[in-house]
Amino acid sequence: MIPRYARPAMTAIWEPANKFRIWFLIEAHACDALADLGVIPKDAAAAVWAKGDKPYTEDRIACIDTIEAEVKHDVIAFLTELADHVGEPARFVHQGMTSSDVLDTCLSVQLTQAADLLLEDLDGVLAALKRRALEHKLTVCMGRSHGIHAEPVTLGLKFASFYAEFERARDRLLAARADVATCAISGAVGTFANIDPAVEAHVAEKLGLSVEPVSTQVIPRDRHAQFFAVLGVIASSMERLATEIRHLQRTEVREAEEYFAPGQKGSSAMPHKRNPVLTENLTGLARIVRGFVVPALENVALWHERDISHSSVERLIGPDATVTLDFALARLAGVVDKLVVHADAVEANLNRMGGLVFSQRVMLALTQAGVSRETAYRMVQRNAMRVWDGEGDLLTLLKGDAEVVAALDEATLAGMFDLGHHTKHVDTIFRRVFGTV
Amino acid sequence: MIPRYARPAMTAIWEPANKFRIWFLIEAHACDALADLGVIPKDAAAAVWAKGDKPYTEDRIACIDTIEAEVKHDVIAFLTELADHVGEPARFVHQGMTSSDVLDTCLSVQLTQAADLLLEDLDGVLAALKRRALEHKLTVCMGRSHGIHAEPVTLGLKFASFYAEFERARDRLLAARADVATCAISGAVGTFANIDPAVEAHVAEKLGLSVEPVSTQVIPRDRHAQFFAVLGVIASSMERLATEIRHLQRTEVREAEEYFAPGQKGSSAMPHKRNPVLTENLTGLARIVRGFVVPALENVALWHERDISHSSVERLIGPDATVTLDFALARLAGVVDKLVVHADAVEANLNRMGGLVFSQRVMLALTQAGVSRETAYRMVQRNAMRVWDGEGDLLTLLKGDAEVVAALDEATLAGMFDLGHHTKHVDTIFRRVFGTV
Amino acid sequence: MIPRYARPAMTAIWEPANKFRIWFLIEAHACDALADLGVIPKDAAAAVWAKGDKPYTEDRIACIDTIEAEVKHDVIAFLTELADHVGEPARFVHQGMTSSDVLDTCLSVQLTQAADLLLEDLDGVLAALKRRALEHKLTVCMGRSHGIHAEPVTLGLKFASFYAEFERARDRLLAARADVATCAISGAVGTFANIDPAVEAHVAEKLGLSVEPVSTQVIPRDRHAQFFAVLGVIASSMERLATEIRHLQRTEVREAEEYFAPGQKGSSAMPHKRNPVLTENLTGLARIVRGFVVPALENVALWHERDISHSSVERLIGPDATVTLDFALARLAGVVDKLVVHADAVEANLNRMGGLVFSQRVMLALTQAGVSRETAYRMVQRNAMRVWDGEGDLLTLLKGDAEVVAALDEATLAGMFDLGHHTKHVDTIFRRVFGTV
Amino acid sequence: MIPRYARPAMTAIWEPANKFRIWFLIEAHACDALADLGVIPKDAAAAVWAKGDKPYTEDRIACIDTIEAEVKHDVIAFLTELADHVGEPARFVHQGMTSSDVLDTCLSVQLTQAADLLLEDLDGVLAALKRRALEHKLTVCMGRSHGIHAEPVTLGLKFASFYAEFERARDRLLAARADVATCAISGAVGTFANIDPAVEAHVAEKLGLSVEPVSTQVIPRDRHAQFFAVLGVIASSMERLATEIRHLQRTEVREAEEYFAPGQKGSSAMPHKRNPVLTENLTGLARIVRGFVVPALENVALWHERDISHSSVERLIGPDATVTLDFALARLAGVVDKLVVHADAVEANLNRMGGLVFSQRVMLALTQAGVSRETAYRMVQRNAMRVWDGEGDLLTLLKGDAEVVAALDEATLAGMFDLGHHTKHVDTIFRRVFGTV
Repeated sequence: MIPRYARPAMTAIWEPANKFRIWFLIEAHACDALADLGVIPKDAAAAVWAKGDKPYTEDRIACIDTIEAEVKHDVIAFLTELADHVGEPARFVHQGMTSSDVLDTCLSVQLTQAADLLLEDLDGVLAALKRRALEHKLTVCMGRSHGIHAEPVTLGLKFASFYAEFERARDRLLAARADVATCAISGAVGTFANIDPAVEAHVAEKLGLSVEPVSTQVIPRDRHAQFFAVLGVIASSMERLATEIRHLQRTEVREAEEYFAPGQKGSSAMPHKRNPVLTENLTGLARIVRGFVVPALENVALWHERDISHSSVERLIGPDATVTLDFALARLAGVVDKLVVHADAVEANLNRMGGLVFSQRVMLALTQAGVSRETAYRMVQRNAMRVWDGEGDLLTLLKGDAEVVAALDEATLAGMFDLGHHTKHVDTIFRRVFGTV
Repeated sequence: MIPRYARPAMTAIWEPANKFRIWFLIEAHACDALADLGVIPKDAAAAVWAKGDKPYTEDRIACIDTIEAEVKHDVIAFLTELADHVGEPARFVHQGMTSSDVLDTCLSVQLTQAADLLLEDLDGVLAALKRRALEHKLTVCMGRSHGIHAEPVTLGLKFASFYAEFERARDRLLAARADVATCAISGAVGTFANIDPAVEAHVAEKLGLSVEPVSTQVIPRDRHAQFFAVLGVIASSMERLATEIRHLQRTEVREAEEYFAPGQKGSSAMPHKRNPVLTENLTGLARIVRGFVVPALENVALWHERDISHSSVERLIGPDATVTLDFALARLAGVVDKLVVHADAVEANLNRMGGLVFSQRVMLALTQAGVSRETAYRMVQRNAMRVWDGEGDLLTLLKGDAEVVAALDEATLAGMFDLGHHTKHVDTIFRRVFGTV
Repeated sequence: MIPRYARPAMTAIWEPANKFRIWFLIEAHACDALADLGVIPKDAAAAVWAKGDKPYTEDRIACIDTIEAEVKHDVIAFLTELADHVGEPARFVHQGMTSSDVLDTCLSVQLTQAADLLLEDLDGVLAALKRRALEHKLTVCMGRSHGIHAEPVTLGLKFASFYAEFERARDRLLAARADVATCAISGAVGTFANIDPAVEAHVAEKLGLSVEPVSTQVIPRDRHAQFFAVLGVIASSMERLATEIRHLQRTEVREAEEYFAPGQKGSSAMPHKRNPVLTENLTGLARIVRGFVVPALENVALWHERDISHSSVERLIGPDATVTLDFALARLAGVVDKLVVHADAVEANLNRMGGLVFSQRVMLALTQAGVSRETAYRMVQRNAMRVWDGEGDLLTLLKGDAEVVAALDEATLAGMFDLGHHTKHVDTIFRRVFGTV
Repeated sequence: MIPRYARPAMTAIWEPANKFRIWFLIEAHACDALADLGVIPKDAAAAVWAKGDKPYTEDRIACIDTIEAEVKHDVIAFLTELADHVGEPARFVHQGMTSSDVLDTCLSVQLTQAADLLLEDLDGVLAALKRRALEHKLTVCMGRSHGIHAEPVTLGLKFASFYAEFERARDRLLAARADVATCAISGAVGTFANIDPAVEAHVAEKLGLSVEPVSTQVIPRDRHAQFFAVLGVIASSMERLATEIRHLQRTEVREAEEYFAPGQKGSSAMPHKRNPVLTENLTGLARIVRGFVVPALENVALWHERDISHSSVERLIGPDATVTLDFALARLAGVVDKLVVHADAVEANLNRMGGLVFSQRVMLALTQAGVSRETAYRMVQRNAMRVWDGEGDLLTLLKGDAEVVAALDEATLAGMFDLGHHTKHVDTIFRRVFGTV
């Protein structure tokens, strides 16, 4: 994890205090269930809660670390420290369970906690996009395909397109959250040989998880693979938005700019610089999150009832994927929210290419006037190419083209050069995306 | 696409005949909608159906190819050939549409067709797994963690675990299918400038797609990224099952074997060989499908209203990912279905390590008899290590350990070596997975 | 492999005719060595050459295919067909060898053949880059960091930078070629149990390969992994150049353009379009080649003396990676060679931002005049920000800044706005890159 | 970076103290060169060394952090702190340089330092492999293809195969080290507009780097991509060795075992367990390192003279790839060094399948006795299949096969069952690999 790309709430999920707290809850809830089943004394379960239900302070964590350094087993170290607090009844803790019961269920809780933060982040991005979409619903700007001017769109439509994409991201994340929100307390190879399934059911319910229908020693890793794959897809959507902004800010376009604070420095060497460093950063962070997808997929094919090769991978990508994406989405929301739009440049770019962007409209008008599509194409193209070569604007050139004016009168021709034509369905699209205009 | 790893039905989806047929349907349905709107004559729309609604034969495809070689534009070539059949009314076809309207909507249809075949494939895998699970519900076999004997499970539980995983695969694929099942007929930059949204709605309905709420020139590629990511997750689940079988077949284990036909040759050099070549092949095919995930993710961040960098990638991974996974899943179903189980080896392996696998049960019995967990662990471990070293079986050694027998009488001790203990919850698990036992 | 992104010479390497020809050469050379060792009769070896040394025609290939469909083993099918030509002495062919000896050594030959074509392709790219670099050595253009105008460079420097990168690509490919150019004829598990190492040495020499020092059943796959990884790096370099051109062509920049043939159509809907479709395509092809790296890496960890999971992966990526990259590099060379430079736009962009790009020079002059770096930065920045806001050009604004003119006289100030300052070391760099200017 | 998978020497390379130290060296050497050129006073350069040449203590680092929090620019913060020590002459530091000159050259130094540690690690792995190879040169063991018994090899050959692979790893890393060992001090866009190339040459020489022939604002990222790709290949080779050991340790094979310390616990639940956790861990770490390859490749295509998207990626993968691989290789060397070989199990496995592994020898003897290859194959296979089915050992069954004994007398037949046959070329192979036997 890169500290500068990390926020405290998400980081805390992966810190020992939270991890041990979850371990405690798993063990304590399991004791309740075991007591209900008569496997351990009710007093023992009560004692675990009475004496163990308190935060994992730095002192406690240090104590566990010291024990682990000796016994080389994290769960045993944890149980030993817990016993110091709970006393004699501690021997009833973890009865019939296996380490993976604790570790895997804990990972499920951490991933759902992480998913909840990411869902909030997505809500932040969505809110910013919606606000800007409505603000610029009818700010007509150039639409570009292949980086080349195509036909007019509106800035609001751009934002709406990203809004819809991030709504899909939200849906995918919700589904992926459900995928990892399972609890397994099924013993060494998943047979419940030494623990009743009722324990699993109780702990699952208390932790807001569902029961893993069939586990081996571990929760199957296709669940986690799907989760990280979805983060990779979301990161890629983020990259699309970041790339859009980087493009809009490049000097020659300059239709929008990341907010640049007074006193900020763009470059130590060049005092004139205002760089889209936030969205460039988001582009890099997208690569990071995407890079975790393949290791997560490679983690699925564990040997037999489990091997432990997945563990080191998850120690990295569990925290790093969620922390990085959390930071990135929060940054993205801020960038969108504060994005400076240069309305004058938007308009200037729209007019830059001498009306070229109306070429399709003219061609269609020609075909409706009876010219064949192929001929109409050639008639328009030959004038358009002259515009590229700087010989004038399209309307003027078309008016000077005898074959064109033979087919279309001047007024009709001029009528094709109308931006309103391109915005008449914006409301329809907004209604689809936002349910409202 | 590798011909030897391809099946005809899936391959056909990606062949020109199917592609052009879908293009025709898109154009013809669009004509109907345009006619309803009064944009083109009703007669024209009728003529398109009357004269164009026929298969794309090899001759027609060759004709399109010839035209494309000249005009260097696939959609224009297609429309030109169609005009040869439809005649004069052909000039009303494609009115106000852009090539991507046709190409992207066609890709949606192809991907949903592919998804439907894959869903059938998954059903085949699920059926085979279920049958074998029920067949071997109580075939007790060794469970292994880290490749080391752990505790008994049943072969049926193994199959059940994969069944549950492939059910999740099915759910994910269904969701991913919905993700790509959208139709966009929105013009050059998605504004419907030259075509009414009603056309899109009509075509979508006729093709069984939903309407893309907001498109640019293209359908957003996060949808496709999610689709291919899910294929990657499914491939990884397939790899887990293939790896399990490869392990079970290795000479020293040999609990199961791929079906080996009379007369088959395992090796040109070594006449004795019977190799798990099908599951090894599936392992490689899983790598192939997984390898397509990252390019699909990289396809998301197109520039502005679209660039065409995604196109070449999709020309590869569209067919290759679906064709490869289709072949692989069908092969997998066959492997599971015909898998030869060597019951004698299953049992022999279970007994191979001198009862070591009951070590946890003994330890728990000792703790229930009042021995501390730590001491119980040491008592059992010291005897278990002697078993590893070939000094006898665990029960005999334990009976000779004074400290152990002081805590547990012989009958209790012997009672721990009971396989029934490990199968008592199999029905519970089967009920969760199959809804029945 | 996607036919439209394939060229015949590279494709031919992967076709059956070439594969079987290489198999024949391996077997025939091996016969010579076996005859020299006295293992088989000299007459037999001679007969193999005399009767078998002829092209694999379509008929022969069809014959092999028919046999393979029956015996389900490609090498056996090949040997059977060969026997039809060679007659009785054919039984001495393949003596003591294993299929992998033939298959893996053949793959080595194919990959070196492919590498040779790719090296030629790189030479083509290098030649085009060098020519354009020298042509535009002193064509001053805007240098951009973060997409924002920075300081002037020259177009020649841009080309030189790519030239140096593709020279590195060439060096890497040469090394990777050596990595895969090994021959293994060592029998079923690499022990030479049934074949003398002298056979391997002879075949290796005849085929221009080195001897694999220690093989298992196969040539170790780290060699191939390295090869495909290098292709992935080269593809990424190609993507950088493609991206540069796409940027230079975007409408607002338009400093360079892919060659657009008279009569070509950029868009079926918009007659005015001229899109950088070739470099967009190269961007996608780069993703494809890059996507093959991870499967190649996953192929390394085969089980024990080999498993066959790598095979299906190589059937895909062997042809597809080399064919795609070959096509792409050839296309790239053409794009560079024919790239249209719009000198007027280059100059216009250079002047677009009112002299902002000289900001560092002014700042340095101020510090040399005794102003602290921090103060100098602020003095320049406050004027530069006014230029961004459209309030005038930098020199004029600086002349109106009392604090600035107090430190620097007007002539010195004006002297900072000199392009020559930025080109004075171009020759040095060219000498480093090209060894000449 | 995961602390538990990190070693101090490698970690230190990436810590602020080392980074700032390298920055200082770059700046101080640059001052020398600038002074030689007469650009800055000789006294100033001398002062920088006299007052600045001292370690970056925690206090100094904290001070830089505080400044950076304010000015939001790491290089400026560094220079400001340095000025506190150097005093007035500090204003001559960094003259004409750009931040990337410092950052990129520093990264080159860090990567070469990291490469040097990794080369040492590889030497450790090589030494262990060589020792074990020589120790077990003639320890005959089963060779396996497809996980199925094939023919005998020796344990020494296994080690030799990995030795050769890690020698290739070493060569690749050396080449990759050279690839990233370049120095760029060329100013804002690489034109040396404000700094003489002599400065770059001087700093490069002092830091043991070569001069970057042509830089933009940055050192081109194909160099780094190649470096990380090579780490990915090495990680994959490591995975092959780890996988081999995991296989050898699985209960049914148990030919070798990771060293298991007295008192160690394999499982909290199952006291009998001895798991190959180190090599499982190495398998996971290989996935991690491999996962960094694609982001490194995606970093190559920066926009124009640079964008900063690569930076965040490198902040992660620079440390994490090198630290993880360093830890893993050191662990691997230890595993190989202490690997416990169970000679009895090695021999037992060799004999387990009733002489099946001599099937090829028998078949070849039959063909040499005049039987056609096809017939010989069938004769051996029909007996081999009976061995699989537990009907006896191969030699006995062959002796009872009339057709076999008609072709081969008993003594010749028995002579085929000779292990010596399979080890006769071991010395040849060892000579190739180690230059000695």
